[in-house]
Amino acid sequence: MDIEREDLNHRRSRLVKYNGMCFLSGQFSDSGGDITQQTTETLAKIDALLERAGTNKSRLLTAQIWLREMSDFKAMNEVWDAWIDPSNPPTRCCGQVLMADPDMRVEIVVSAAL
Amino acid sequence: MDIEREDLNHRRSRLVKYNGMCFLSGQFSDSGGDITQQTTETLAKIDALLERAGTNKSRLLTAQIWLREMSDFKAMNEVWDAWIDPSNPPTRCCGQVLMADPDMRVEIVVSAAL
Amino acid sequence: MDIEREDLNHRRSRLVKYNGMCFLSGQFSDSGGDITQQTTETLAKIDALLERAGTNKSRLLTAQIWLREMSDFKAMNEVWDAWIDPSNPPTRCCGQVLMADPDMRVEIVVSAAL
Repeated sequence: MDIEREDLNHRRSRLVKYNGMCFLSGQFSDSGGDITQQTTETLAKIDALLERAGTNKSRLLTAQIWLREMSDFKAMNEVWDAWIDPSNPPTRCCGQVLMADPDMRVEIVVSAAL
Repeated sequence: MDIEREDLNHRRSRLVKYNGMCFLSGQFSDSGGDITQQTTETLAKIDALLERAGTNKSRLLTAQIWLREMSDFKAMNEVWDAWIDPSNPPTRCCGQVLMADPDMRVEIVVSAAL
Repeated sequence: MDIEREDLNHRRSRLVKYNGMCFLSGQFSDSGGDITQQTTETLAKIDALLERAGTNKSRLLTAQIWLREMSDFKAMNEVWDAWIDPSNPPTRCCGQVLMADPDMRVEIVVSAAL
């Protein structure tokens, strides 16, 4: 089976397709803002990458969510719950993890079926 | 290939089956207690979900373990080591990550072969 | 499909092969040292495990990097960027997570195509 990589630089691919699945790099906001803004932007980037892979959020398999502060949990979930396909949610875990840029409040790593 | 989802709400599926594999949401104790109690309950929940998927712990592929406090590492491992199929352990990583509920001491995310 | 496990003890397999993929336990330095030394040793261990699986870093699918201190981000990336196959980088995420041994500065979890 072949591996397909898209949107790559010298460090990472944003998207890797293999064996009927696609894997995305951790996505996060470039624009900053509060947790609602950052989650909205992050999920829009995931939508765009899934579309590029030829799939969509109804085929998500797994999601790992990192929050800078767990006090953002409720507000992040409001955006998440409105975004997700309610008939087809992925597995999920969510923990408090600091990210490279101190302005980042959320990073989300997903895998999906093609 | 079809995706099968089980035990889902508007936010996540506890179990997703696809492509010969199953993925579980991060499992954790609902009852609180010390790390021994929480790890025991968490692994029992994983057993139940794996059984529901038609597989079992001897077919685990990967495990990611989050501990609220790394001082729980030894006591968590005592439960883990007694639980795991010693001929068929998964890959593993374990780090200190805070979870949504401050009473949660451990969360475990696994994948398994069907 | 059969599951193949290698380099296992009572707690974990360092390598699990299944369904055209291989999964590695979180790798880290045994020798300590600064972030450059620890990242170099960690990636060498990943190279060795991938070779044992019959694959190599050009077939990496995903990488999750844990740093004890995000101030090590730049120095870790210098080693990572020099190591990675620039035509075939995996997806990636990197967060600050404490590990079991306080001397550990970095742990890396990868999956690869066989």
